[in-house]
Amino acid sequence: MAAPTSPHSPHYPIDETHDPKLESWVESANDPGTDFPIQNLPLCMIAAPVEDEPDAMSVHPAVRIGDMVLVLDMLAHFEIVDGSADEWQWLFVEDLAEQGLTGRVRKIVQDLLKKDNATLRDHPDCDQIVVPVDEVSLGVPLMDLGDYTDFYASLYHATSVGSMFRPDNPLLPNYKHIPIGYHGRASSIVASGTDVRRPVGQQAPTEDGGAPSFGPCKLLDYELEMGVVVGRGNELGDTIPIGEAETHMLGLCLVNDWSARDLQKWEYQPLGPFLAKSFATTVSPYIVTMEALAPFRTPAFKRDAGDPSPLPYLTSEGNTSGGGFDITLEVYLSSEQMRSKKMEPVRISRGNFKDMYWTLAQMLTHHSSNGCNMQPGDLLASGTVSGKTKDSRGCLLELTWNGDAFASPPKLVPGTDRTPIDLPTGEQRKFLADGDEVIIKGYCEREGFRRIGFGECRGIITPARTI
Amino acid sequence: MAAPTSPHSPHYPIDETHDPKLESWVESANDPGTDFPIQNLPLCMIAAPVEDEPDAMSVHPAVRIGDMVLVLDMLAHFEIVDGSADEWQWLFVEDLAEQGLTGRVRKIVQDLLKKDNATLRDHPDCDQIVVPVDEVSLGVPLMDLGDYTDFYASLYHATSVGSMFRPDNPLLPNYKHIPIGYHGRASSIVASGTDVRRPVGQQAPTEDGGAPSFGPCKLLDYELEMGVVVGRGNELGDTIPIGEAETHMLGLCLVNDWSARDLQKWEYQPLGPFLAKSFATTVSPYIVTMEALAPFRTPAFKRDAGDPSPLPYLTSEGNTSGGGFDITLEVYLSSEQMRSKKMEPVRISRGNFKDMYWTLAQMLTHHSSNGCNMQPGDLLASGTVSGKTKDSRGCLLELTWNGDAFASPPKLVPGTDRTPIDLPTGEQRKFLADGDEVIIKGYCEREGFRRIGFGECRGIITPARTI
Repeated sequence: MAAPTSPHSPHYPIDETHDPKLESWVESANDPGTDFPIQNLPLCMIAAPVEDEPDAMSVHPAVRIGDMVLVLDMLAHFEIVDGSADEWQWLFVEDLAEQGLTGRVRKIVQDLLKKDNATLRDHPDCDQIVVPVDEVSLGVPLMDLGDYTDFYASLYHATSVGSMFRPDNPLLPNYKHIPIGYHGRASSIVASGTDVRRPVGQQAPTEDGGAPSFGPCKLLDYELEMGVVVGRGNELGDTIPIGEAETHMLGLCLVNDWSARDLQKWEYQPLGPFLAKSFATTVSPYIVTMEALAPFRTPAFKRDAGDPSPLPYLTSEGNTSGGGFDITLEVYLSSEQMRSKKMEPVRISRGNFKDMYWTLAQMLTHHSSNGCNMQPGDLLASGTVSGKTKDSRGCLLELTWNGDAFASPPKLVPGTDRTPIDLPTGEQRKFLADGDEVIIKGYCEREGFRRIGFGECRGIITPARTI
Repeated sequence: MAAPTSPHSPHYPIDETHDPKLESWVESANDPGTDFPIQNLPLCMIAAPVEDEPDAMSVHPAVRIGDMVLVLDMLAHFEIVDGSADEWQWLFVEDLAEQGLTGRVRKIVQDLLKKDNATLRDHPDCDQIVVPVDEVSLGVPLMDLGDYTDFYASLYHATSVGSMFRPDNPLLPNYKHIPIGYHGRASSIVASGTDVRRPVGQQAPTEDGGAPSFGPCKLLDYELEMGVVVGRGNELGDTIPIGEAETHMLGLCLVNDWSARDLQKWEYQPLGPFLAKSFATTVSPYIVTMEALAPFRTPAFKRDAGDPSPLPYLTSEGNTSGGGFDITLEVYLSSEQMRSKKMEPVRISRGNFKDMYWTLAQMLTHHSSNGCNMQPGDLLASGTVSGKTKDSRGCLLELTWNGDAFASPPKLVPGTDRTPIDLPTGEQRKFLADGDEVIIKGYCEREGFRRIGFGECRGIITPARTI
C-alpha cells in the first residue's frame, strides 16, 4: 500500500493497520457503510449479565467490530493473549497512562480479527469473546471518568453567539489568542441513549428590576461537540508541551453538551455557565483511538492574514501541519410524533471538525500550561462545532438565531434568519420539545481508506419534574 | 446541661455530645486552646507506614482528638467496635450516603475517648489505634473526592470586586436572586501543606490590539473560603429540597482557592475563571461534622429591607432561622524572610462565615435544582468570605484594592485604599511573593460551649517553572 503520509500527526503514523484491503471474519465489519470496519476498532465499555447470577452485571472493556463487540478481558481469560483477565479488565483504568498501549492493543486485536486468522474465529469459546452488540449494554466509554472541561474552540460559533449579544463587537479581544474553556460537571455525563430530563431553573425577570421566575427551561438546546479523552496525564505543576500533547490523548468521542439557554442567560455573569449545562452531557459509547484517526488528519485552521499567530507555547510544526481532524459531524432530530409515525429522523445540520479555530493539542497544552494536572480519564470537549454556512451550525441557538428567546431579539447579521426548523409532521422547532430525540453522528472518509465512524450519541428529552 | 437550643439546624440538635464538661483521657484534648476537644472529633484521612513493608503507606479514615488521631478501621481490627476493618476502612467512601452515620460514629468514638472509659484507654493495642498526629501524614480528608464547585456567596466580596470593574454598578442584577457558582477543577485539590507552584499563563496585552504576554503570574492571590463536603447525593434528574439540604452534608472544611488575578482578568470572558484557579486549591485536613457544629449555628444573612426574598425553592423556616454558621476565619501570612528570622506569621484578616449572603443549604439546593446529581465526596466551596470592614476581607485583591494590577487602577470606593500590607521584616505585599506561606484558620466559640476548630489550611508559594 502506498498511502499518503501527509498531513499527519508525527505521533500516529499511517501504517499497515489502515490498509483498506483488510477484511475481517466478522462479516458485518466488511459492509462498506459500517462505522466499524477492522480499520477502526474503537474502545467501549459494556455491561453484560454474569453467568449463574441472574441479577448481576459486570463491566468489561471491549472493542467494537461490525455489529459485534470483542470483550478484551475475555481474550486473556481464555488465554488467547498474554496477561491476566484482571489486567485486561483494568487496562483502561490503570494503564491508560502508558504511551502506545492503545496502538499495541490495536495490532493484537486487528490481527485476531483478520479474515484468515483462525485463532479466535475457530476458538471453542469465541462466542463468549465476540458477542453481538445487541446483547450487551453500552455505557460511558471509560471505567473511571475524571474531570470534564468544555472549550469554545469554533470561531464561527463564538462569532455567531457574540453577534447576538454584541452585534458591533461579536468577538471578544481574547478569543484569537487563548483557547477559551471552562470546567464542566463530570457527575452528569451520561451514556448515549440515556433520557435527558428537561431542567428546571431560574429565568431572567421580564422587566428591569423585576423578580426572576423559576420553572421548566423553555429554551432547551443541544450542542454538537467532539471530546478527547486523556490517556496520560501530567504531574501537578508540570505541563504538557504542544509537541507532545497528542501522546497524552487516548482518542475521540462524540459529545452533546445539552444547554438550557434561558438558565444560561440569567446565571452566566460573571462566572460562566453552571446549571445551564450540568443537568446532562451525553457521550457516544465509543472512543475512536488516535491510531485509527491517523489517515484523517488535516492542517490546523488556516488563520486570516490579519489574525495573530498563536503564542509559541501553542505552536508546533506538527500541530500546524496536522493538528486538525477531518470528521464529518451530523445532527438528526426526531420528534415523538415522527417516531409514532415511523418517520426517519431528519438531518438538521452537517459540519466538520476540521473547521475548529483551535486544535485539540492546543486545548490540552493550554489546559496544563498553568500546571494543572491532567489525569487519565479526563474528558475535554471542543465546544460547539459550527462552520461558516448556516447548515453547518452546531446548535439550535445558531440555527434559528435564538428563536424568540429575548423580549428584543438579537439583530440579524448577514447569513442569519429566525426561520424555525420544519419537521416532516408539520411541526416546527426553535428549541427542543419534550419527546424530541437528538442524534449526533460522526464519520471520517478519505479516498484510498476505509470509512470509519463514531457511532451515535443519542438522547430523548423527557418532561421537567413537577415543581 | 441546659443548653440553648436556638438558633439551630432542625437536623442537627444540640445534645449531650456537646456538653462542655466532657473530658478525654487524651489529655491534650482538654487544653482550653485546642481546636480538637472531645466535642469536635473531625474526620481526616491519614497515611501511615505499613508494618514490615518499609516503603509502603496505607490510607485510613481517622478522627482527630487533641494532638492524636484515632484510626477508625483499627477500632474494628482490634474488635473494639462491631464490623470489619474493611467496612470501617471504606466507611467514608461507600457509606457516606447513609444519613446519620457520622452522628453514630461520633457517639461511639466520643464514648471510647471519655476520661473514665477504660475500654480503649487500657486496651493493649491502644497505641496502634490512637497515634500521635506528628507520626502520620494528613491528606485531603476524603478517600474519593468527587466534583468540585465554587460559589460566590459573599455579598461584600461580590460588591468589592464588582466595584473595581464597574464602579457605578458594582453588583450584577442576578446576584441577590441566584447563588452564583461555577464548576471548579477537582484534580488539583491538594492537602494542606502541599507547596503551590506559581502558575504561568497568558496576561492581557498592555495596549488595545496588542499581543498578550505569557509568563509567570504577577498577581497571585489567595481566597479564604469554607467548603462543605456532600455526604449523600441525589439521582440525576432529582433534586435536594431546601428543607433536606443539610441532611446531605457531611461537614465543613477550610479552603484556599488560590487565584491568579492577571490570568483571570484576561481569560474569564465569557465563560468564567479557568486556569486562574485550576493550578491548585488547598483544603484543610479535617472535616468538622455537621453534628459538631450544631451549637454554632446562626440565622441566615439578614437581607436589607429593599432586598428581594429568595425564591421559594431557596426558602425554608429552618434555613432562615439557623442556616448560617458562626465560624471565625483568619488569614496569616509568613514570608520566607520572616521564617528565616523565626518570626511568627502575621494575621492579615479576620472574618466570619455568618456574613455570607447565601447559606450552604441554599447553595446545595440550587446546585441540584436543575437535576444535577450531587455525589458523596463532592466539595462545594463558598467563595471568598469577606465582611463589611476592611480587616475582614478574604483576599489580597480586596485588601490592597487590586494593588497596581491595572494600567488604570480601579476607582477607590469608600472604605478602600491601595495601601500594601506591611510585614514585620519591612517587606510589603500587594500580592503574594515566592516563599510566602498563607495559613487559614477557623474556629467556633460560644458561651457555654467548648471551642472547636478546623485546624489549618497552609501552602507555600514556590517559584514558577522556567519557560
